[in-house]
Amino acid sequence: MIYPKPLQELIDSLKVLPGVGNKTSERYALKILELSDDEINDLIVSINDAHKKIRHCERCGNLSEEALCSICSDDNRDQAIICVVESITDVIAMEKTENYHGLYHVLNGLIAPAKGILVDDLNIESLKIRLLNDNLKEIVIATNLTIEGDTTSLYLSKMISVENSNILVSRIAHGLPVGGHLDYADDLTIIKAIEGRVKI
Amino acid sequence: MIYPKPLQELIDSLKVLPGVGNKTSERYALKILELSDDEINDLIVSINDAHKKIRHCERCGNLSEEALCSICSDDNRDQAIICVVESITDVIAMEKTENYHGLYHVLNGLIAPAKGILVDDLNIESLKIRLLNDNLKEIVIATNLTIEGDTTSLYLSKMISVENSNILVSRIAHGLPVGGHLDYADDLTIIKAIEGRVKI
Repeated sequence: MIYPKPLQELIDSLKVLPGVGNKTSERYALKILELSDDEINDLIVSINDAHKKIRHCERCGNLSEEALCSICSDDNRDQAIICVVESITDVIAMEKTENYHGLYHVLNGLIAPAKGILVDDLNIESLKIRLLNDNLKEIVIATNLTIEGDTTSLYLSKMISVENSNILVSRIAHGLPVGGHLDYADDLTIIKAIEGRVKI
Repeated sequence: MIYPKPLQELIDSLKVLPGVGNKTSERYALKILELSDDEINDLIVSINDAHKKIRHCERCGNLSEEALCSICSDDNRDQAIICVVESITDVIAMEKTENYHGLYHVLNGLIAPAKGILVDDLNIESLKIRLLNDNLKEIVIATNLTIEGDTTSLYLSKMISVENSNILVSRIAHGLPVGGHLDYADDLTIIKAIEGRVKI
């Protein structure tokens, strides 16, 4: 069946959402047709508002409505430690644990020369400026254990030691996940778990 | 983390989509923030257009931009046969086979007294009017094999025989799906397959 044109256009537009193909897009579009005028209005206003009002925090690159994000402008957080992450979703994952109380720096990507992503394409220049802050004691690099994550981690740790050698640079631990079994773990994870062993 | 307010509102609004919970909604919302102004504009316009312009076909209840849907207004289709389906998604499923060339009638639900859905809540009155058409030869009832589907089928077949006894009423076949194995089929499917056996 050829869908009525506005419906086909809606199905096509909804495919910009991640992981949404033809089938899901059809379901979403048919649901949207059923919504009340108020619900449609809410949806459109919220898409528009979020897109217009949300920007990146000038200091850390996190999402924010103001110039500084809610984490950077929170005086109760430890201003002496910065966790460097690849993306905003990493900040969300960390914050959900409610266990880390320092600040963040969101790179918005990783160094990946093969994909044409170089240092200048990332939010690294603003990290350099933050390094001049005298109170800073530690930078935790929380990039993933991939070639790009390792490259970025190496680059950052060198850069930090050049800019401000008083800062301790660390990287999050890699090893067996909690609840994971040794006999199900992949080789690399086991190697990392042994390398990263700690005295008890 | 407390999301910036417009982002939280967007995450909440996106949950009106079917099957979209917190996690998926977050992913969609973060993607929406990354879209260009043009893409956002396209998305909003297409939501608005589809919601405003798409209505139900006056004759069959299918989705349409005009008073009559593309199927009802297609003279190449067999005007003597009507397939009665529960919802628009059933029309889509049937049309994808490109095997049925008659018309449709979309009930927009099934008779379900337990859920408070009675005959008057469905698109049945307009089917009655269609029954007076002299050229109509057959009505195929394509409701599912559920209590509601059976009830609706029974009601419709009685109604049709009262209104116009010249019309043949049939129901789509239920039995083993193509590629299905007898030893994996459930009891009801096997019973239906035996009941519905055809002479070879």
